[in-house]
Amino acid sequence: MELACIGAIARDGVRRLALTQEDGEARAKVISWARQLGMSCHTDRIGNIFLRHQPEGSKSLDPVVTGSHLDTEPNGGRFDGVFGVLAGLEAVEALKESGHVLRRPIEVAIWTNEEGCRFQPAYMGSAAFVAPERIPLFLTATDGQGISVNDALTSARAYYQVDDIRDGSSPMRAYVEAHIEQGPVLENTGKQIGIVTDIYGIQRFEIDIVGEAAHAGTTPLQMRKDAVVVATRIVQRLQALCASEEVRLTVGKFEVAPSSATVVPERVTFTLDIRHPDQSFLDNIPTRVRQILEVHVKPCAFEVRSLVNAPSVAFDPEIQMQIESAASALQMSFVYLASGAGHDARYLAEHCPSAMIFVPSHKGISHSPAEYTSPTDLGNGARVLTDLLFTLTR
Amino acid sequence: MELACIGAIARDGVRRLALTQEDGEARAKVISWARQLGMSCHTDRIGNIFLRHQPEGSKSLDPVVTGSHLDTEPNGGRFDGVFGVLAGLEAVEALKESGHVLRRPIEVAIWTNEEGCRFQPAYMGSAAFVAPERIPLFLTATDGQGISVNDALTSARAYYQVDDIRDGSSPMRAYVEAHIEQGPVLENTGKQIGIVTDIYGIQRFEIDIVGEAAHAGTTPLQMRKDAVVVATRIVQRLQALCASEEVRLTVGKFEVAPSSATVVPERVTFTLDIRHPDQSFLDNIPTRVRQILEVHVKPCAFEVRSLVNAPSVAFDPEIQMQIESAASALQMSFVYLASGAGHDARYLAEHCPSAMIFVPSHKGISHSPAEYTSPTDLGNGARVLTDLLFTLTR
Repeated sequence: MELACIGAIARDGVRRLALTQEDGEARAKVISWARQLGMSCHTDRIGNIFLRHQPEGSKSLDPVVTGSHLDTEPNGGRFDGVFGVLAGLEAVEALKESGHVLRRPIEVAIWTNEEGCRFQPAYMGSAAFVAPERIPLFLTATDGQGISVNDALTSARAYYQVDDIRDGSSPMRAYVEAHIEQGPVLENTGKQIGIVTDIYGIQRFEIDIVGEAAHAGTTPLQMRKDAVVVATRIVQRLQALCASEEVRLTVGKFEVAPSSATVVPERVTFTLDIRHPDQSFLDNIPTRVRQILEVHVKPCAFEVRSLVNAPSVAFDPEIQMQIESAASALQMSFVYLASGAGHDARYLAEHCPSAMIFVPSHKGISHSPAEYTSPTDLGNGARVLTDLLFTLTR
Repeated sequence: MELACIGAIARDGVRRLALTQEDGEARAKVISWARQLGMSCHTDRIGNIFLRHQPEGSKSLDPVVTGSHLDTEPNGGRFDGVFGVLAGLEAVEALKESGHVLRRPIEVAIWTNEEGCRFQPAYMGSAAFVAPERIPLFLTATDGQGISVNDALTSARAYYQVDDIRDGSSPMRAYVEAHIEQGPVLENTGKQIGIVTDIYGIQRFEIDIVGEAAHAGTTPLQMRKDAVVVATRIVQRLQALCASEEVRLTVGKFEVAPSSATVVPERVTFTLDIRHPDQSFLDNIPTRVRQILEVHVKPCAFEVRSLVNAPSVAFDPEIQMQIESAASALQMSFVYLASGAGHDARYLAEHCPSAMIFVPSHKGISHSPAEYTSPTDLGNGARVLTDLLFTLTR
């Protein structure tokens, strides 16, 4: 709640865009809490921050890393990202107080610009960490005011101090990210902990249906090339792609031209966003979409453009089982589920064994001031994370 | 083509909005042609113009009236309306030259503001003629600049002179309007003359489908209330209302909110325009639309608002047969068809036996600079009109 004051907007919302003053102040606050726990702090060239707990007795082994991000959407909430960073600090504090000797260091990462609202692309920090050759290009990305990531990072750094700058992508034993679910599955199934199996891959298209404008009164139906009649039929036929429960299919935009009640529509342009945890399913999608269009588009014509083709990511099976063991030991209910939203863990999975822990989102709402997870649910997630980090340091 | 120079715009288009300077100049030109034929000219309080041919030997019987309008859409063509007025003058000229003695006078009417683009409502002149109690309200209607019909009429009258002002709606033996089809039926069926049986009635609705916005990635399909999935299904189901060839069903607007590729749509608002020549069919439409919505709207909700409910109009069967006789005698091919577009004849049908003669529209295009009917087709229509007017004066 203290962090949520930095960039607070109406109705419990937060607006804390990447590398703004608010982002810099939030980083300063979290760094100060980490220093109270005796953690060191280093950064890298894209501004990711690593808060390191290296207790006496631990060896110079690759660290176990957790964390998430502190930036938000323009009209965001208090929990997306923030929870994963603070749960990491809570875990370190608990482990420290427990008196257990840890074999490995633990690092809490704050990834730069996860949301991608001010600067494109999203997941910039984690993508740069796992492939530092991306950094020069990312640093030149500009926001709506023409400010570059490089300049914004320089400005933001004025708000906090780090011990040193680390270059390149250092090895990690594992990466585990705790996050709010941002969907309704945990709440609707009454489970406390979500064990994330995969991040859904995405195939997104923009599709034009091209017909012919005509007078709504004078043109008989059989002489029309009505783009709305055809496009609505195709949207209905595309539902056939939802063969399994796991498919997420969304037609979020559907724009008609010329958009007059008395003119037969000449053109419809709609988006088709299809997500699935299984990459082989997604690989078939472009062909299947094209087949449906070809069969049902008459008497109109179509064009289809690929907007996004992001592969699915499978998380480490062993860590998933360790999360289950932790939840069971703590007598918490759990469910295995795939994440339809993207996360920094998507990129870390390319770098080391990775996994995610979800806690419930009230009504599944996220990217909104109404985003809410109860203190009990947040605490449950932090406890499972603590147990897991301890296991992973062995 | 001479009239088309008044208000000419790019690509053979015409912009001659009601009661503008261009409209006044066009009226002056037509009146001058009528006076060359020895016709008198009177007007009424809404600015309709009546060009009267009362040859020696004709009796003081109710006149046979023909005509149409001279105003156009903002981006209109050369033939819509104009053809009916000029065909009337051609008919008078031909009858005059023929030496036939006419029993009744013939009047060529120029109805004020048929298009309804500058001033609402459309069909203002003919609606006012058949029900003069509408005139005070119509005169106070204003355009986008706040100019009233009354003031615009005063300005337009500066461009032409009339012999007198006639009050009220005088009796007529019959009204016949020649017009371009504005649709593709005549061209596609290869017919020269359209005998109009009815003007389609219109039931127009605005329908909201209300669901719930959600994250396109994190929300399983079975937990969604996706307004686009439901609205496209309903648009498809509404096609079931097109049981006969005569139905004209158009969903011309289809607007999605929030309209983002990654957000499950919360709301769709679409228009539904249904036209049919048979009023009993139209009377059932509100109930049938509501039934389809109730059956298929789950898990969303709906609202439906009536925007237009204009009854169908049946033209005089005897005059239709006289048009057929005229076309047959002139060895022209013909087809009976209903008009999906509205016309001044819609209102005249309340006043006296009325009918319409259609000539082909190239590709069915109208309300566009591309509107085109060949001189041969226009001549055919004028010849049938001439024959018919002669018959009706008997």
